[in-house]
Amino acid sequence: MGTTDKPIALVVGAGDHLGSAIARRFAREGFHLVVTRRRGDLEKLSREISDIGSTATAIHSDARDETQVTELINRVESELGPIQVVVFNVGGNVRFDLCETTTRVYQKVWEMCALAGFLMGREVVAKMLPRSEGTILFTGASASLRGGAGFSAFAGGKHALRALAQSMARELGPKGIHVGHVIVDGLIRNEATAEFLPDLYASKGEGGIIEPDDLADIYWHLHTQPRSAWTFEQDARPFSEPW
Amino acid sequence: MGTTDKPIALVVGAGDHLGSAIARRFAREGFHLVVTRRRGDLEKLSREISDIGSTATAIHSDARDETQVTELINRVESELGPIQVVVFNVGGNVRFDLCETTTRVYQKVWEMCALAGFLMGREVVAKMLPRSEGTILFTGASASLRGGAGFSAFAGGKHALRALAQSMARELGPKGIHVGHVIVDGLIRNEATAEFLPDLYASKGEGGIIEPDDLADIYWHLHTQPRSAWTFEQDARPFSEPW
Amino acid sequence: MGTTDKPIALVVGAGDHLGSAIARRFAREGFHLVVTRRRGDLEKLSREISDIGSTATAIHSDARDETQVTELINRVESELGPIQVVVFNVGGNVRFDLCETTTRVYQKVWEMCALAGFLMGREVVAKMLPRSEGTILFTGASASLRGGAGFSAFAGGKHALRALAQSMARELGPKGIHVGHVIVDGLIRNEATAEFLPDLYASKGEGGIIEPDDLADIYWHLHTQPRSAWTFEQDARPFSEPW
Amino acid sequence: MGTTDKPIALVVGAGDHLGSAIARRFAREGFHLVVTRRRGDLEKLSREISDIGSTATAIHSDARDETQVTELINRVESELGPIQVVVFNVGGNVRFDLCETTTRVYQKVWEMCALAGFLMGREVVAKMLPRSEGTILFTGASASLRGGAGFSAFAGGKHALRALAQSMARELGPKGIHVGHVIVDGLIRNEATAEFLPDLYASKGEGGIIEPDDLADIYWHLHTQPRSAWTFEQDARPFSEPW
Repeated sequence: MGTTDKPIALVVGAGDHLGSAIARRFAREGFHLVVTRRRGDLEKLSREISDIGSTATAIHSDARDETQVTELINRVESELGPIQVVVFNVGGNVRFDLCETTTRVYQKVWEMCALAGFLMGREVVAKMLPRSEGTILFTGASASLRGGAGFSAFAGGKHALRALAQSMARELGPKGIHVGHVIVDGLIRNEATAEFLPDLYASKGEGGIIEPDDLADIYWHLHTQPRSAWTFEQDARPFSEPW
Repeated sequence: MGTTDKPIALVVGAGDHLGSAIARRFAREGFHLVVTRRRGDLEKLSREISDIGSTATAIHSDARDETQVTELINRVESELGPIQVVVFNVGGNVRFDLCETTTRVYQKVWEMCALAGFLMGREVVAKMLPRSEGTILFTGASASLRGGAGFSAFAGGKHALRALAQSMARELGPKGIHVGHVIVDGLIRNEATAEFLPDLYASKGEGGIIEPDDLADIYWHLHTQPRSAWTFEQDARPFSEPW
Repeated sequence: MGTTDKPIALVVGAGDHLGSAIARRFAREGFHLVVTRRRGDLEKLSREISDIGSTATAIHSDARDETQVTELINRVESELGPIQVVVFNVGGNVRFDLCETTTRVYQKVWEMCALAGFLMGREVVAKMLPRSEGTILFTGASASLRGGAGFSAFAGGKHALRALAQSMARELGPKGIHVGHVIVDGLIRNEATAEFLPDLYASKGEGGIIEPDDLADIYWHLHTQPRSAWTFEQDARPFSEPW
Repeated sequence: MGTTDKPIALVVGAGDHLGSAIARRFAREGFHLVVTRRRGDLEKLSREISDIGSTATAIHSDARDETQVTELINRVESELGPIQVVVFNVGGNVRFDLCETTTRVYQKVWEMCALAGFLMGREVVAKMLPRSEGTILFTGASASLRGGAGFSAFAGGKHALRALAQSMARELGPKGIHVGHVIVDGLIRNEATAEFLPDLYASKGEGGIIEPDDLADIYWHLHTQPRSAWTFEQDARPFSEPW
C-alpha cells in the first residue's frame, strides 16, 4: 500500500462520475486519496490524481461486506495513516412497481445504500473517536426525503442512510466528528447516460445537468467548515430543475 | 383454517399491546381477525376476540421470511377469503451507540421494520390490485422522522418503512388501495414495561402513557375513510408528551 | 344570542363548503354551533343545522380584527357558555408571480391565514386554560409544507399558521388543550368552482374531488380522541391525487 | 452615494454580528458593500470594510417599509450599479407564552422576518430578472422548521420566510437567479449576549458558539456555486449543539 505524508481522504464508491470528481477535488487540495469500488476501473482515476500532482491508492473492495470493510479501514490506518475524511458515495437507483420488486432487489439496494454506509461509518468512527476529529460525508438523493411511486427499494435505502447520517451527526458531533449529508437532486453528467439519453441531455441545456466537479466543491467546503458552524445537510440541483 | 363470512382483517405483529388492541377494535366492528406473530401467545387474544363475539385465526409466522409470508397470504385468501385490511405492526426498538451496534443487530432491525413490511405489502397488494380495494396500515414511530443519537438501526428501519409506505401510497392510491402510516410518539402501556419502570409510569400520570385501545381507534378510522379524503399520515402522542 | 344547554362548537370561516360541512358534522353530534364568517350567507347553514335537529348562532365577524375576535369570544362564553371546540377554517389561496404580488395581497393573505388564526387561538385559549380542556383545530393545505412557485403569499400564510398550531400544541397539550392541524391536499367540491371548471371536475371522476362531508369526519374524530393518543397533524387527499 | 467599479453586494440587516461578518466576507472578495439597518451604528462596519481594502455605502433604511425598500433598491441600482448579491438578515427572536403574545408583537415579528424579506426579494428580483442572474440569500433559524412552545410569533415569521425563499427558488431558479436559505441553529457570538449570559458562554466551550466569520463563509460559498449545482438550503450549528 505504500506510505504517504499527506493527509488521507477515503472515497468509498469512487465511480466514474461523482466519486471520481470528489477524489480529484481532495487531491487538488493535497490529500492522498484512497479510492475504492467493488469492481470497475480505478486506473483512470489514479492517473488523473497523479496528473493533478497527488497520489492515490486504488482498492477493489465490496462496501457491503463487513470483513472487507473492516480490513480496508484497518489496512489504510495501519499502513498509510489516519483517515481524515471519508466520503460514502455508493448507491443503487432502481425503479420498479411494487409487485415487480423482487426480495433480492429490495435487499440488495438496502445493502448498497444503507448497510454499506453503516459498516463504513462504524469502522471509521472507531478509528476517529480516540482522535476526536474527522469528517464523514454521505451522498443522498431526492429519494432520501420522498418515497415516490416505484421507489420503495431505492427510497427505503436512501431514507435509512439519511437516518444513519443524522443519528451519527447527533452522537458524534459533540465528540469532534463532523458528519454531513448531501442531497443530490437531479441528473449528474455521465457519459454512459448521455449516450443512452441524448435527447434528455440536449433538452436540459447548459448547466441543466449536474457537473460532477461543481458538486464535488460542496464536499470540499463541508470538510473545511470550522466546528463552530458545521452543516449537517445541504441540497444541490441544477438551476432549471423542477422540484 | 376454517371459513368465515365476515370481512377479514389481518394483523401482522399481533403482540400483547398495540397489535392486540387493533385486532380487538376490528373484531368489535364484525371483522374476522387473522392475527400473526413469530412466536409468543396468541390464545389470550383469540379468547378476547371470541368474548367480543367475533372470530379469529391465530398463526405463528415469521414476517421476515418471504416463503412464510407468501404462504400466509395465499392460505388466508384461498381458505378464508379476501383480505380487506392489513395492519403491519412489527418493530424492534433498540438503542446502541454506533460502535456498539453489531452488523447482526443493524440487519435484524431492518428486517423486522422494513423488509417484513415490504414482503407483507407486496404479497397483499398482489391480491388487492385486481379487486381495486383494500387498506394497508403501517405503524411508525418518532424514529420514522428523526435519527436520534444511538438510533442508527431503529431509525434506519423505521425511515425505510415510511419510505415504503409513501411509495406504496403514491403508486396504489390511484388504483383504489388506501395505504396509511401512523406515527406513534410515546410509550404505549404495556404490563412488562410497567413492571420494569414503575417510577416512569407513575411520573406520567393519567393519560400520560398511550392506551393501546385509544391508539387502535386511529387505525379503525383510517380504514373507514371514504376515498375522496384519504389520510396518508397521522401522528399520535399523549397530551403531556414533550416533542 | 339566546341560550343553549348543548356543548358548544365554534366554526370560524363557515364558508359554503368545508366550513359548513364541519358545522353540520358537529351539529349531528348534538353540538350547538356558533358559525362565523366575515360576510356572505349564513342562513342556509343555519337552516341545515336546524333540519339536522340542532341549533346555531350565526355571526358576521371579521377574523382578522382583534376587537371583533375578542368580542365574539367574550359574547359566546358569557351568553351561551364554554366553547368546547374551535375550528379555524379561514384561508385565502391566491397565485401570483413574485413581481406581481402586491404588498397588499401579501399582507392580506397573511392576515387571513395566520393573524386571524393567532387571534382566535389566543382568545379562546384564555378561556380554555382555566378549564384545562378544549379542542382547537386548524385547516392547513399542501402549501403548509411546500412553497411552490407563485405561492409566496399563500404558502407564507399557511406555513405561519402551521408554526402557530405546532407552537400551541407543544405549549397547551400538557395543559389539557388538544391542538390539531389538518393538511388538505386537493380540490374540495364546491359549486362555484364546479361551474367555472367543468372539465377539471369531470376529469377527476368519482372520489377524485374531496367531498366536504368526508373531510369533516376527520375534524370530528380528532375532537373525540382521548388524551392518551392525541393527533397533532393529519393529511387528507383524494385517492387519485398525485402528490 | 458615490460610484464603484466593483461588483455590488447588499446586506439588509447589517447588525453587529452575523450581518457584519457577511459584509466583511464579501468585502474581502472585492465586493463593494451596501449595508443597511434600520438604526444603530454602521460606521464601525464601514471602517472594517475600508481596513480590508474595499468600499462600503452605509444606509439607514427600514426593511419593513415598502417605500424605503423600493427607494433603496432604485438608488443603489441607478447610482452604484447592478446588485449581484443580496443577503437578507433581519430577524426578531422573541419568546412569549401564547396568551402573553400581543397582537403588536405577533405582527411586528412577522413584518421583520417575512414582510421585509418579501419586499426586498420582490424589488431586487425586478432588477435581476432582465439580467438573468443574481444571488439572494435568506437567514433562517431552527424556528424555520419547528414551532416550539412559546415561539408562535418567531416561528410564524421564520416559517413564512422559508416559504417565501422556497417559492422564489422554484420560480426564479429557472430564470437564472439563485435563491438560498441558511438555517442557523445555535447561539451566534455576540458581545451583548456574552455580557448578559457569561455562564452560558463559558459552558459552551471553544467552538460551542457560532463564530460569525465561520457562518459567513457559508453565504460566500453559496454565492460562488455554479448553476449546475445550486444549494437551496443548508443548516449550520456548533459541533456540540444538541438538536
